[in-house]
Amino acid sequence: MKYDSAKFVVALDLIGIFVFAVEGAMAAIDANLDLLGLMVLAFSTALAGGIIRDVLIGAAPPAALRDWRYAATAFAGAALVFGWDDFVRQIPYADLMVADAAGLGLFAVAGTGKALNYNMPPFIAILLGGITGVGGGTVRDILLSRVPTVLWSDVYATAALAGAAIMVAGLKLRLPPAFMTVVGAVACFLLRVVSVWRHWSLPRVAH
Amino acid sequence: MKYDSAKFVVALDLIGIFVFAVEGAMAAIDANLDLLGLMVLAFSTALAGGIIRDVLIGAAPPAALRDWRYAATAFAGAALVFGWDDFVRQIPYADLMVADAAGLGLFAVAGTGKALNYNMPPFIAILLGGITGVGGGTVRDILLSRVPTVLWSDVYATAALAGAAIMVAGLKLRLPPAFMTVVGAVACFLLRVVSVWRHWSLPRVAH
Amino acid sequence: MKYDSAKFVVALDLIGIFVFAVEGAMAAIDANLDLLGLMVLAFSTALAGGIIRDVLIGAAPPAALRDWRYAATAFAGAALVFGWDDFVRQIPYADLMVADAAGLGLFAVAGTGKALNYNMPPFIAILLGGITGVGGGTVRDILLSRVPTVLWSDVYATAALAGAAIMVAGLKLRLPPAFMTVVGAVACFLLRVVSVWRHWSLPRVAH
Repeated sequence: MKYDSAKFVVALDLIGIFVFAVEGAMAAIDANLDLLGLMVLAFSTALAGGIIRDVLIGAAPPAALRDWRYAATAFAGAALVFGWDDFVRQIPYADLMVADAAGLGLFAVAGTGKALNYNMPPFIAILLGGITGVGGGTVRDILLSRVPTVLWSDVYATAALAGAAIMVAGLKLRLPPAFMTVVGAVACFLLRVVSVWRHWSLPRVAH
Repeated sequence: MKYDSAKFVVALDLIGIFVFAVEGAMAAIDANLDLLGLMVLAFSTALAGGIIRDVLIGAAPPAALRDWRYAATAFAGAALVFGWDDFVRQIPYADLMVADAAGLGLFAVAGTGKALNYNMPPFIAILLGGITGVGGGTVRDILLSRVPTVLWSDVYATAALAGAAIMVAGLKLRLPPAFMTVVGAVACFLLRVVSVWRHWSLPRVAH
Repeated sequence: MKYDSAKFVVALDLIGIFVFAVEGAMAAIDANLDLLGLMVLAFSTALAGGIIRDVLIGAAPPAALRDWRYAATAFAGAALVFGWDDFVRQIPYADLMVADAAGLGLFAVAGTGKALNYNMPPFIAILLGGITGVGGGTVRDILLSRVPTVLWSDVYATAALAGAAIMVAGLKLRLPPAFMTVVGAVACFLLRVVSVWRHWSLPRVAH
């Protein structure tokens, strides 16, 4: 299944990277890391998902390392938090959550589209969309020696997978790629935001 | 050193994946993860070893992502545990351990064989057989924020390395590949089972 | 930016691997791991940085797995610690720190040089030099379920990045590669040693 990535997704990518980098840098401060740790967490949270995807689909060197602007954008997010932590902390949680949900949707569809371009099977492309969305936060949590939040809390990876699945389903039905990219990203975004608003969580087996 | 992988190893692979996925899903429940976490742990425990091996030998995209049946088998194991946890918990520990030992033996020889096919040096192919066998459990433990069991307990990776080494030694002596594959897997299986039965452990330096 | 790697860097590499392997094995004993864990930590601490770099620049299989001597050197370091732990523990901390700083400098410039050879942008090559230097210790800490030391303590990754940056800056100015390799390694070494001696640390944001 071939997929023509829309140029505007690439541009929006940098916005998602900035948002995720800011969140990674804030987590670094909460964990009392130093400036180097803050930069590493900003970089990892923003770019590790895409790097893991690219390594897995055989697209090494990853896009995030071919082009210095990705890393520069992540470090710009780190610099904002390092220099103006007080300002960043004043941003309401709801605003950060909404920006994060937008980034998640963008990463999910961008990741799915790239996986399809590399001829991955549709089912695997959906998984890779999910990994692109949540891989950065997972690496951040591993570096902080925590069980990744995505494994036990909230409807987060599920939203990314749902957006990716909707996009792939639409492409299977030969709907226009640009249209399905937007639909998939919006679906992920809405599912994420509504799930936070309504306090949804996934089922678990009691033990 | 060239090695012709026997078709039946590929088929048995899926059985090993199912067993490892069941164990990963059970560990997810013990750690109070949600359904998404259960699926991720089943997937990782079953497939991360082979994925790491394939990335390291330059065989990206990994087999586990080229063919949707690998992931589907892992998720089938996850579904079994999620839907019938009570049933799975009734399986005696000894049965699970024996099934796991069989999976370990299969993964070790399959991993070693694939590494040899990709022209890795024999000594490195043995290490990659070990990584294929224990990589999934290691990633599972890292995701659960634990020191991987394989690093401090039991004779587990050692059994995988021994089976891989016996297989490579036999191939060096020009014994038939299919025969040495079986011998290596059985050697790993027996060493693992006997070591649990006799409570063997590796030496360590007192500190 | 092309870079001709000096042969002597490759030779010195093995010394750095040995030093890092000894440190990884000592950390394994401190964490009460068994012999297998000790070998894994020696291997990971010594080689994971270079392996991650090679996977990221698209140089799979990594150099550390193409040539059995890298792994053998790491295991030799493990064997030294396992067999003569009392002897190794008598080495003064300052000596170990100086040897480690030398290894860090070598890894940083070797990693940067290899990244340039694979046509990575200069800014990214500096990051990859840093990853080559600190990747092993980071993987060691993750396997020990700890927040990697490099993220919150000392001037360590910063020294590696500084050495890499100086090397890249010199190459940009068309200074001789062999000369800039030495300058970069020495700069990293000196910055690391002086920072320990003067108890320097990076700034952090109070939280």
